[in-house]
Formats: sequence, C-alpha cells, structure tokens
Amino acid sequence: MFESAELGHAIDKDAYDARVPKLREALLEAQYEVLRQAAFPVIILVGGVDGAGKGATVNLLNAWMDPRHIQVHALGDPTEDERMRPPMWRYWRALPPKGEIGVFFGSWYTEPIVHCAMGKADIDDLDAPLDEIRCFERMLVDEGTLIVKLWFHLSKKEQKRHFKALEKDAKTRWRVTETDWAHHKRYDRFRKVSEHVLQTTSTATAPWIVVEGSDFRYRNLTTGTVLLEAMRKRLAGPAEPSPLPAAPLQVALDERNVITSLDMSQTMPKKDYADALAKYQGRLNQLTRDPRFRKLSLIIVFEGRDAAGKGGAIRRVSGALDARQYHIIPISAPTEEELAQPYLWRFWRHIPRPGRVTIFDRSWYGRVLVERVDGLCSEADWMRAYGEINEFEEQLVAHRTVLVKFWLAVSRDEQLGRFKERERVPFKNFKITDDDWHNRDKWDQYTHAVCDMVDRTSTEQAPWTLVEADDKYFARIKVLKTLCHRLEAAMQTG
Amino acid sequence: MFESAELGHAIDKDAYDARVPKLREALLEAQYEVLRQAAFPVIILVGGVDGAGKGATVNLLNAWMDPRHIQVHALGDPTEDERMRPPMWRYWRALPPKGEIGVFFGSWYTEPIVHCAMGKADIDDLDAPLDEIRCFERMLVDEGTLIVKLWFHLSKKEQKRHFKALEKDAKTRWRVTETDWAHHKRYDRFRKVSEHVLQTTSTATAPWIVVEGSDFRYRNLTTGTVLLEAMRKRLAGPAEPSPLPAAPLQVALDERNVITSLDMSQTMPKKDYADALAKYQGRLNQLTRDPRFRKLSLIIVFEGRDAAGKGGAIRRVSGALDARQYHIIPISAPTEEELAQPYLWRFWRHIPRPGRVTIFDRSWYGRVLVERVDGLCSEADWMRAYGEINEFEEQLVAHRTVLVKFWLAVSRDEQLGRFKERERVPFKNFKITDDDWHNRDKWDQYTHAVCDMVDRTSTEQAPWTLVEADDKYFARIKVLKTLCHRLEAAMQTG
Repeated sequence: MFESAELGHAIDKDAYDARVPKLREALLEAQYEVLRQAAFPVIILVGGVDGAGKGATVNLLNAWMDPRHIQVHALGDPTEDERMRPPMWRYWRALPPKGEIGVFFGSWYTEPIVHCAMGKADIDDLDAPLDEIRCFERMLVDEGTLIVKLWFHLSKKEQKRHFKALEKDAKTRWRVTETDWAHHKRYDRFRKVSEHVLQTTSTATAPWIVVEGSDFRYRNLTTGTVLLEAMRKRLAGPAEPSPLPAAPLQVALDERNVITSLDMSQTMPKKDYADALAKYQGRLNQLTRDPRFRKLSLIIVFEGRDAAGKGGAIRRVSGALDARQYHIIPISAPTEEELAQPYLWRFWRHIPRPGRVTIFDRSWYGRVLVERVDGLCSEADWMRAYGEINEFEEQLVAHRTVLVKFWLAVSRDEQLGRFKERERVPFKNFKITDDDWHNRDKWDQYTHAVCDMVDRTSTEQAPWTLVEADDKYFARIKVLKTLCHRLEAAMQTG
Repeated sequence: MFESAELGHAIDKDAYDARVPKLREALLEAQYEVLRQAAFPVIILVGGVDGAGKGATVNLLNAWMDPRHIQVHALGDPTEDERMRPPMWRYWRALPPKGEIGVFFGSWYTEPIVHCAMGKADIDDLDAPLDEIRCFERMLVDEGTLIVKLWFHLSKKEQKRHFKALEKDAKTRWRVTETDWAHHKRYDRFRKVSEHVLQTTSTATAPWIVVEGSDFRYRNLTTGTVLLEAMRKRLAGPAEPSPLPAAPLQVALDERNVITSLDMSQTMPKKDYADALAKYQGRLNQLTRDPRFRKLSLIIVFEGRDAAGKGGAIRRVSGALDARQYHIIPISAPTEEELAQPYLWRFWRHIPRPGRVTIFDRSWYGRVLVERVDGLCSEADWMRAYGEINEFEEQLVAHRTVLVKFWLAVSRDEQLGRFKERERVPFKNFKITDDDWHNRDKWDQYTHAVCDMVDRTSTEQAPWTLVEADDKYFARIKVLKTLCHRLEAAMQTG
C-alpha cells in the first residue's frame, strides 16, 4: 500500500511555481460551484504518519480555497458531553452541510489505529470497528457526501531525518514532541496496523489516497490535484446513483402477515385499567429511579398509523417519569438545517445521556414508512435505510441504551371511528387533517411497509413490540408492561 | 414578598375536582394555539423553597398539557463544554423556539441565590448578576418571549413539618436528602436572599408569581390558572409592542463623522507589504501558540461595505493561524431554526472555547446595519440592539474572550472601481450581485448607521477599529497589527 509513497517523489521549484496558480484558481472555482449548487457536502479526512505534513496540508487547504466555507475539526480527547454518547456522536455533530467542506484532522480512524498500534489491541480486534466505519462511510456516500481520504506517508528513515532536522533549528524545535519520538519507536507496528486499516477501508466509493509527505511541493500539488479532480468528477456526474433493480422484499401469496396475525380483539376492562395503570406506572417510576439506571439510557420509539393512540400512550409513559428526566421529540417535516444533512442526523441530535429518557413520537422509521409509501425518497434510499437503521441502533445499544420500539396497530374500522370522532368534537378538530385521510387511502401500502420494517429491523437487541391498539386501555398497559420488562432485563444483565 | 404565601391557602377536594377538568382543557387549548401561531416561545421558570412542590409542579405541567411540546431543562452542575463558555451559554442553548414551551427547573437564578444563601457572597454582591439577569430577560421579552416566573414558597415551620412527614413514611423517605436539611438550617438566610432577588427582578414584563406550596390543590390550581391567563393575554394582545417614538440618535449638522474623518489616502507600498505581512503573521502565529493563550479565546468581527476587502483580510488572518484552531463563520440570511429564536442565538452557537479563534465574516451587527437600513426589523428592534449587543459582548469579555471588531471603510469611488473589476473578470463574477448595487444606492443611510454603531458599541473592552481600506495592503497590515496588539495586551494583564 505504501510502495509508491516511498519512492522519493519530488517536484522542483520552477515546475511547482508554474502549476500552483492555475491549480488554486481551479480549486477555488470548484469550491464555489459546490457551494452554489449546495447539492452535496465534502468531507476530507487527513491522516498519516507524524511529520508527513498533515498539519501543513490542512493549513494549505484553507489557504488555497475560501476558508469561510471550510470547517476544520481537530477532535482530541472526547469531552464530557461526548463521552456520555455513543462514540460516533461527535462526528455526526461535526458533519458539514451540503455545499460546505469539512476537514477532519484526526477522524473516526484515529482511535482504532492508535489503540492497536500502541499494542492495546490485536489487528483482528479491528474487524468490528472497521466494519462500522465502512458502514458509516457507505451511508455518507449514499446520502451524497463526497469523501476524500488522504493518508500522508513517510518511511521510517525519512521520519527520523525529518524530526532531527526540526530539532536542530531553535525555531522549529518545539514542533517535535516526546509523543512523536514515542510513536517513531513504534513505527513498524504503526505501519503494519495502518496498512491493514487502509486496505480494509479503501472502498470503491471512498478510497484512500496515499501521498508521500517528504517533499512539500509534491505533497501540496498531489493533495490539490486529488481534491480538484474529486470535486470536478462529482460536479459533472449524475446527482444520484442509479442502482440496479433489486428483488422485491416480499411477495404476498396469502393474507398472513405480522399485522393480520395480531389478535385485535384483545381488550382491558375499564375497571381493571386504573389499577394496572397505577401498578405499571409506579413500577416504571421506580425503575427509572433505580441507581442502576444511571448507567443506562432509555430511548422509546412510537410508530403507528394516524389515530392509533400514540399521543395517549406517550402521556401514560411520561406521566410515570420525572419531567426533569425525559424529553419528547415529535418528528414532523425536517427543517432546512436537517435537510442539508444525512437523514439520521436529526435523530443523533437528540440522543440522551445516561440516566435520561428520550421518547420519539415518530422516528427515523419515517424513511421506510411515509417516505417510502409517498415516494418522498427513492427506492434505493429506503432500501438501504434498513441496514443503516440497524447499524445506528446497534451503536445505541452498544452504548448501554435500552431501545424500545412500539408499533401501535389499529384496525381500519377503528381508525375510521376515531377520525369521525375527531371531526365531531370541536376540541379534537385540530388533530384531523387531509393528510390523515390521504394516508388512509394507502392502507395496504402502509401494511406492506410495516411488515417489511418489522421483518428487517426487529433485532434481538432492539426488537419491535407490536401493540394491538384498538382498545386504548389494553394498548397503554402493554406499552408500560413492555417498558418495565425491558428495563428490568437490562438492569439484571447490566 | 412572601406574606400572602404564608396564609395557609388551601382548596378542598370537591372544589378542586370541579375546576380541574375545565382548566386542563383550557390549558391544552391555549398551548395548541401558541403552537399553531408559532408567534412566540413560552419560558416557565420554576424556583423556590425545597419541599414546596417544584418537582411536582413540573410533572403537573407535563401532565396537564401536551408534553411533546414542552422541553424541561433541569440543569445541574455545568458540563465541561458549558464551563468552557460564558455562564449564560447553556441557557441560550436550551431556549425554546417559537410555539414551544421551555420549563427551567433551576435557572439563571439558581447559582446567584444558592451562592449567596450559603454565605459565599454578600447580598450587595448580587447587584451585578441580577442586573445581567434583568437585561437578559428584557431582551427575551423584547424578542417576543412570554416569561412566567413561578416561586414556590413554604414557611420555615411548614418546611420542617413537610420533611418530617416524608421521613416518617418508608416509601417517601428517600425524597428528603441531607442537602434538604442543610438548606433548612439556612432557611432564614435563604429567605432573605431570595426575597431580595425576587424584588429586584420582578419587572413589569416578567414579574415573579409567588405560590404557597403547602396544599397541592391550591398550588396546582394557582399554577395552572397563572399560566393559562398569561398565555391567553399574550394570544389576545398585539403581536409586537408599540414603543413611543424616541429622540433621533444623531442630527448631522455638518459633514464630520467618524467615517468622513478617516484619512483614506493611507497606503502601503507593495515592496513593504510582503515584509510586513510576514512579520505580523509570524507574530500573530506565535501569540496564538503562547501557553497564555490557552486561557483566552479570540473572537474577530469583520464588518464593512461590499467589496471593502473583508474576505482578503480574513484570509491573511487565517493564514497566520493553525487551521485546527479557528473557525470562520460567514453570516448570511438566518435559517428557519435561527429565525425561531432571539436574534443573538445564532451567534451564541459559535462561541469558541479557550485556546480557539472564531472569525465572523459579518456578525450580530447586521441588526444595526443591513436590518436597520433595509427595514428588515422595526426601529424598536434595532434601537434596543445596541444595549443587547453591549451586554452580550461584556459577557464574552468577562469570560476572557479577546474581542476585536473591524470596520473596513472603503470610499465610494474605490467601491465602484472594485465592482466594475468584479464584473469584468469572469472568475470574480460570482462576487457581485444585484444586492451589492442596491446597497450602494443607500450609501448615506449606511454611513449614518455605521456612525451610530461605532458611537454606541465601541466600548473600552471591545472597541471598534476603523480600517482605512481603499488600499488593501494598508488595511490588511492594520488588521494584523491590531490583532497582535490586542492579544499582547490581554496576555500582559493576564
């Protein structure tokens, strides 16, 4: 992987001076075109060997382009806020919106590489984190991001020579730290680890570009040219990839599916409801006050057709909690800032810290429900969403989040009754809109989408709970019971 | 202040049960109307004596209204991210957008009151923080926020009785903590301090409402009714206050002003420029690497007419810095999320932590420049902005931010020349728009606005530097020099 970057590439001063002005102008032009179209974000990862010019390159990018539309992120040790969330949270927060350039100096690769290079993990242990990284980057690319991954390389000999030269000069001595020499001693291990990482994560859509770092002119010209070509190719290419048609997710040969198989006749008599409500609300309250809960967090997702009783169920859950402890996030159309980001970004914003609860009233499943059914995104978009969602939820669960997902199932007749009730009662009027009637027309398509969703995203760690919701009392108690059981289970294994 | 709240107010069960259903319905209706209009945010502060039902009240609000549009903030000790910013930063981040309700359980009052009640400060020491709070709340109200400040009170005797009763019951014993008893011992001091605070901060537009806390029915009914009336009054009232006409900020009797008094003929020969640039960029670079800078932060504001050379000056500044250390924030039209907040919110988002630099390419001064001149806000809005801006900048400076503000002054002829140049050179074409020509037509109104801005917001701690910018070389060096001087001065005073 590093062969071509140890050849002693160099550009002489005249050739460099002749080429730079045009390159800069072209880069700036490409940057402004990206900005003007605001069609995709650009992410530049800067990694590599100490002393190979990573810092200088970041400064160069800002000098050659318009720094007002470049955000550089040099993420060091995670802050307290960051440690309280899954590791990728800090990167999601720093993603550039469409039209902008984000430079990551040190990135999602830093921790796995350093950890392994310092001997704290075997190369085999990298399988899982690198797999997560590939998923993350594939998602970014699928969402339209242009990712340019630059790796600056120096041979061991060159690195030593470089550090010695800096140390000789009083003005540059400060730049060589003890950590640099400590890393130098581990050069061979570092090289082996990074070679493995680069090979494993060099994909067709987000390849690594290795740049020899010893000659600054060669380094600069290479960096600038790579970036320019990358932007130009994306600007010239199609706005969206055209995926090959895939097999249908299901072919319904009979009427049996996870929704039709529900026993919708289940009810709870009013006289039992009050007691059950008090009992399970009390238990839920105690569980969230349990000292063991301080190490967990709870995310509750409510999905369901219009008038399925999501709001009422949510109120019975929140009524059991301390208001200081939870946030409810109602999901409707995304804002402008959210539209300029990958679709999961708006949910990452609301990930709770330990000891807290976030309740989503509709959620990231919108992509495979309303967006799919109403054609608000392409088939390719919602088809890949199942995998992206599972990946997202795995990260939450790995960070000790108890994730409970409810589908509130209401029958067609019951929904009609509730719609009519809403139209009749002036106070409930605001709750019924044309959208609701429109969604009702697409009943079967929704059923289809729900079945696919359950099949593909009900995992052992984050299973769907289907709630027979024609009887509100029955539904609310089932929701509360499920929450108690899930929390108890998490605390026992905890 | 607490007389009426020690009378033993109580409501009997029948009266309560008769009134609650109507009150809840009315509250919910008012909440949805606030949400539907999305015309203003609602902030509810919940403070008071331990044991007087603060927590229960917060839960009540969520139970009686739609909790999906209420965000409760129980801000405890500041997190690391918060400690790295001015104290008010955490509250700015938590402000509810228009249409939503934010409940602050513990608020900007908590720290001053507790600090003083625990004997760590005299009551006189509260003058400064309370003054800041009044300014902050006045700004919120002026921006349209409805603020409801609730103080729950118990007499000393009642508090003791309440704690004892809780301790008697095994099920509620956990609710009485050592801190509660420690606070009880200091009841008299706490009462004295909070009485002072409440009196000082009970303003006509954001008064405190003291609620006796011993009887939960009385407490709930009072809270609900206060909130309902507050929302109803605001919904019924005018959307904006109609302020009385004020005196004009200036009457220009001659041609002398801070802009016409500039010596616009100052230049720097090209041959001197390269050396000066290297010198001051080097110095600035060293200053930002100085260990003393890790305790400071630097905010640089660039304002100036179109084509005054802001972009070029910014690039010369950023070129001297490590790209990992600074962010440039170009300010254009606010996003939807920003429009739903007080206008300073979008700038608070970008306040740097210690050791970092934020460069604003246009800034919060837009309010008293373009928004004033183009009538994008009311006269009352920009008139009050001077004071709000000074208040904002004081907070930054108090948090060890070096704040440097540049007005790049360009003459009318020079601007015309640059516009024509931009039209001629295809590559610079994108830089000239109809807006630029339009702003040029309003030349004198802008001059007027700039003079007012300098007069009213050039303070000792955050002075304006007017930069004669007809000669780009001269201007850039003046900018760099000023930055060096300001940083040196800040480091010397330590």
